Amino acid sequence: MNGQKRLRDYGIKIGRMKTGKRNAITDVAGVTVGHCTLSNGDMQTGVTAVLPHQDNIFQEKLIAASHVFNGFGKSMGLVQINELGILETPIILTNTLSIGIAADALIKYMLRNNQDIGRSSGTVNPVVCECNDMMLNDIRASYVRSEHVFSAIENASTDFYEGGAGAGTGMVSYGLKGGIGTASRCFTLYNQTYTIGVLVLANFGKQEDLLVNGYPLGRELSAKELDESEKGSVIILVASDLPVTSRQLNRIIKRSAVGLSRTGSFIGNGSGDIVIGFSAAQRIPQQMTGLVSVKAIHDNDMDHAFHAAAEATEEAVLNALVTAETTVGRDGYRAESLREYIDWVKIFDF
Amino acid sequence: MNGQKRLRDYGIKIGRMKTGKRNAITDVAGVTVGHCTLSNGDMQTGVTAVLPHQDNIFQEKLIAASHVFNGFGKSMGLVQINELGILETPIILTNTLSIGIAADALIKYMLRNNQDIGRSSGTVNPVVCECNDMMLNDIRASYVRSEHVFSAIENASTDFYEGGAGAGTGMVSYGLKGGIGTASRCFTLYNQTYTIGVLVLANFGKQEDLLVNGYPLGRELSAKELDESEKGSVIILVASDLPVTSRQLNRIIKRSAVGLSRTGSFIGNGSGDIVIGFSAAQRIPQQMTGLVSVKAIHDNDMDHAFHAAAEATEEAVLNALVTAETTVGRDGYRAESLREYIDWVKIFDF
Amino acid sequence: MNGQKRLRDYGIKIGRMKTGKRNAITDVAGVTVGHCTLSNGDMQTGVTAVLPHQDNIFQEKLIAASHVFNGFGKSMGLVQINELGILETPIILTNTLSIGIAADALIKYMLRNNQDIGRSSGTVNPVVCECNDMMLNDIRASYVRSEHVFSAIENASTDFYEGGAGAGTGMVSYGLKGGIGTASRCFTLYNQTYTIGVLVLANFGKQEDLLVNGYPLGRELSAKELDESEKGSVIILVASDLPVTSRQLNRIIKRSAVGLSRTGSFIGNGSGDIVIGFSAAQRIPQQMTGLVSVKAIHDNDMDHAFHAAAEATEEAVLNALVTAETTVGRDGYRAESLREYIDWVKIFDF
Amino acid sequence: MNGQKRLRDYGIKIGRMKTGKRNAITDVAGVTVGHCTLSNGDMQTGVTAVLPHQDNIFQEKLIAASHVFNGFGKSMGLVQINELGILETPIILTNTLSIGIAADALIKYMLRNNQDIGRSSGTVNPVVCECNDMMLNDIRASYVRSEHVFSAIENASTDFYEGGAGAGTGMVSYGLKGGIGTASRCFTLYNQTYTIGVLVLANFGKQEDLLVNGYPLGRELSAKELDESEKGSVIILVASDLPVTSRQLNRIIKRSAVGLSRTGSFIGNGSGDIVIGFSAAQRIPQQMTGLVSVKAIHDNDMDHAFHAAAEATEEAVLNALVTAETTVGRDGYRAESLREYIDWVKIFDF
Repeated sequence: MNGQKRLRDYGIKIGRMKTGKRNAITDVAGVTVGHCTLSNGDMQTGVTAVLPHQDNIFQEKLIAASHVFNGFGKSMGLVQINELGILETPIILTNTLSIGIAADALIKYMLRNNQDIGRSSGTVNPVVCECNDMMLNDIRASYVRSEHVFSAIENASTDFYEGGAGAGTGMVSYGLKGGIGTASRCFTLYNQTYTIGVLVLANFGKQEDLLVNGYPLGRELSAKELDESEKGSVIILVASDLPVTSRQLNRIIKRSAVGLSRTGSFIGNGSGDIVIGFSAAQRIPQQMTGLVSVKAIHDNDMDHAFHAAAEATEEAVLNALVTAETTVGRDGYRAESLREYIDWVKIFDF
Repeated sequence: MNGQKRLRDYGIKIGRMKTGKRNAITDVAGVTVGHCTLSNGDMQTGVTAVLPHQDNIFQEKLIAASHVFNGFGKSMGLVQINELGILETPIILTNTLSIGIAADALIKYMLRNNQDIGRSSGTVNPVVCECNDMMLNDIRASYVRSEHVFSAIENASTDFYEGGAGAGTGMVSYGLKGGIGTASRCFTLYNQTYTIGVLVLANFGKQEDLLVNGYPLGRELSAKELDESEKGSVIILVASDLPVTSRQLNRIIKRSAVGLSRTGSFIGNGSGDIVIGFSAAQRIPQQMTGLVSVKAIHDNDMDHAFHAAAEATEEAVLNALVTAETTVGRDGYRAESLREYIDWVKIFDF
Repeated sequence: MNGQKRLRDYGIKIGRMKTGKRNAITDVAGVTVGHCTLSNGDMQTGVTAVLPHQDNIFQEKLIAASHVFNGFGKSMGLVQINELGILETPIILTNTLSIGIAADALIKYMLRNNQDIGRSSGTVNPVVCECNDMMLNDIRASYVRSEHVFSAIENASTDFYEGGAGAGTGMVSYGLKGGIGTASRCFTLYNQTYTIGVLVLANFGKQEDLLVNGYPLGRELSAKELDESEKGSVIILVASDLPVTSRQLNRIIKRSAVGLSRTGSFIGNGSGDIVIGFSAAQRIPQQMTGLVSVKAIHDNDMDHAFHAAAEATEEAVLNALVTAETTVGRDGYRAESLREYIDWVKIFDF
Repeated sequence: MNGQKRLRDYGIKIGRMKTGKRNAITDVAGVTVGHCTLSNGDMQTGVTAVLPHQDNIFQEKLIAASHVFNGFGKSMGLVQINELGILETPIILTNTLSIGIAADALIKYMLRNNQDIGRSSGTVNPVVCECNDMMLNDIRASYVRSEHVFSAIENASTDFYEGGAGAGTGMVSYGLKGGIGTASRCFTLYNQTYTIGVLVLANFGKQEDLLVNGYPLGRELSAKELDESEKGSVIILVASDLPVTSRQLNRIIKRSAVGLSRTGSFIGNGSGDIVIGFSAAQRIPQQMTGLVSVKAIHDNDMDHAFHAAAEATEEAVLNALVTAETTVGRDGYRAESLREYIDWVKIFDF
């Protein structure tokens, strides 16, 4: 999107399912993504906002689910998603030590748009996730402010930058420049086309482990030692227009681990690998009386969605790596772009 | 403590186990509690800090566990506690919409005291919990600032106020004034005395449900309707000097639900009922090489600790109610003290 | 039921909600319960079957959920209930070492009634739970056979015995004779009456802990030592006609811990405390094409159901104790009936 | 082992870590594996037993953990492993409808060897897992009997057959003949060599998804449609001599999903994908007094074990496929051996 050269533009195709029009999370109708990028010397960080739909999300909530693959991280909002199966705010991504300030800004944003919060409607559950960009960014300097969160929300659009943009600005993945990546998959069920879109904030993986479409590029790139620990994290957001319950959505989003694994990661100890999903198929009003009628697929028909989540996650990670530009940050730390090496990848021809 | 008249001072004794010296969470050696209270008209809120020990908790971590009874809440830090079984910061309690600012302040506090965070040591996992004090406090006004968090930490002491102090300032429980309460229990195992201390932030329960030592006081107090929903939440912190693994500690802290249930609650939908526990028996260094040697009781010997956690939680909730003063807050909302009605409680004599 | 004198017949009323017609799990339309009792000297055991509806449950499944309060037990079938949120067999209760044979018998029963299993339909998920009746019964003798399981299923009826019947034959609870107990609660939501019915297999609790409607009868009964550990377990089955998703049902059934706690238990280490729930509101066909339409209440309206599950569980446990007859079993071990002491209970009059 | 030609014998090497001596779960000292194979026409099934050590496992238990990736399955014993973190019986694998009879047989075996069970020691937690071999085997015929379980236990040895042996006799994986496979990995930590061994019962995966060391062999093998659902399951057993707590072991065994993913699976809806792990580093006595001293690695040092679990699982699955012989079973259903096609796999040379 936005003219960036992505994985498929290099002739590398992940999996066998069809992509959506943009091959992006924004192929799910209503979803937009916005960035606020802070890039200057030791400041290499930012904020990314994902808006699940374009109306008032607090008043018209979406069915949601979350899952933690490895909990070395401190996302806010998962407890209530798990209990109620509902998303009621935009999702904010930022650097690890800015999570408090980002949560506070998101609360302020919600208060501004919902006069009933704290009066007739109780509280609101802000959803904020983070990765640690300390290699490229001076996280002790706390560059992120409330206005950067507001700006990311305001910038949200169906087209958005991947790589070192927004929360992805300072991220490093597989020893290369990481950041924001996205992809989508479509499939037909009951004569209807459904879409699953994934957005990742990629900040994980050891260089020697990197697989590109099964090709062990990392081994070629790296002479590093086995005992270097995997640092960093990955946040995965899964959007869909498939009608599902929260339990079913939880099943779907767990398959993003399959995609992660195929990029080479073994989900290291120091990684906060967290996935949040939401379904745009149906809105749950904040106030209502009477029974809710939830449409849902039969669990027997889940495999399309599982496969789509796995494929889209794998491609989203690789899109993050291949769109990111080589970046020099804090203390001259340099993270190179996968783009420099993408031609080394061998493709099976058949 | 601090001269406040507590449940036992009214002749009401919960359970059959012995209490610690202070009958407080601070009976566990090393634990201190501090408040910052913001009480003036529509501002009825504050911050409470629990320090697990008096050294650098980031460098010398404690074994910890958490459990969510009902997840209508947005505590920060549980994901990493669950994964690593470790606590590495003080625990901060505040009002629901101040959780972002409190997390940010706790991060700043940790950065100030640990120059290695964000440099050689990666990130830090701040633990912050909240209840919704919107009945007495104008939560939309966001009164809590970073300096209030710092102040609560600095004020921490083995003696501290219960009831409407710190984070408890604006809390309402069982239709009465709620807030901070504490209690402890001791028992002997393998010829050693161990202590379990509990601190609650009580902001839960419908008035008609209130039980005091089994006596249905709520029914006498209330003519309210069955369909009034339970609002608010309760945060429970469990400290112990018992040597346990994180798995065992998780088992122990879950028994706090027994104590909650005996005060009358049925853990309502709108409640964020969350418990966090830590064991002071052993410290896990941030940096080390070689095997850790963890001492732990045998699971067969768990029942004392289970019983202690249940009893101390029940008494801590009632201490919160009976020490709290009648309070008038936002828009003249008035929450009465249980003290006014405590004489109505009938005690079985035998 | 069946002419047994139950808790309310002694003038003791738990909680404030209305009971169903039978005050039993069978107040939920379609549910029946059957026993096969094996009582003779050292043989004090049996089987209880709960049929969720009267049609072919494998072909017309029900939404279900399970939760483990304490996992010192070995129930079969929970893994698939948790994954798919579905119940597709009757539920069988028996003694702890007969769980294999009972599972095998239930599989045989399902095969006999469903020629498609193992051919066109794959496998079936048998649900079997157990408690340890070793005090009264010689569990090493393995008295339970397949035909006892078939017999319990065939005997199923809306009226059934409580106390020492079926799987309850050899159970001991709070140092008294335990076994099968049941109760129900009704409430109105959206102008409709809904029922929650509970059946327990009570085999848990230390005598001194017993509370009857808040009255500490156990302290009067017992001069036993605090360090005697809680043995045994409790299985809780929750049926309802409330339209709910599996996630919501999981929230409801967890409230049975509130009822347990109010009978005095602190959910001891050696206890397998497990709850399974199902909703009769809607059937999910084994084979279907197209979207399922699930009706469900709004989570905001959950509190009635929570309250009902808590109250019905408390009363079901006490019904088990008060209907059970004094029993002498293996090696002359004698478990007395609560009936002998029920008059000692003092009731608050107001 | 036993002269079978395994993956490495075809020049295909998974990952970069060193294998143990046998490249098998039995590289972990004390572990043995035994089969009882029932293969004749429509009868293609059996039992596999894994003995965690060679002494009385009920009296000297091991630290254990389990995890469910997808719960379309009915393993017995996971509830208590999760609660207590302990394994106290051999692990039995068999076909899905024989789980009841296998559990019953394992209970009988434990009773025979432990006179205290059901008398002074309460109950025992039998661990039994299953996959559905209905394509090759007539599961409705219930061929497995108690004596087959006893025989598998008695046959246990450090050398054992892979492929269509024991519980693996009738299994199908990736549309090819599946069954039992094993592999191991070694690494050095704190100047000590540790081993992680994996055994799988492979009965999962769609043919077109199969990856062999990253090579998409399945696409070549298959002209099948995307909408054919993944049937079957996989059981993964992870043994280690690494000193760990149950929480840490749970983290390690979850990485087996990485290995599964790399063989092509996306963990389909109809799959019971379950992993159980145990550590032979230390024994926990059934009876004891006083504190247990548990040695454990620091979580910072986990990545070796994570990597090992991932690699060994990937190789164990492929060993199962490549050692299995082409088999014709029920109604003439034919499952071919991967061996026929293994030469199609292209290997990256560098």
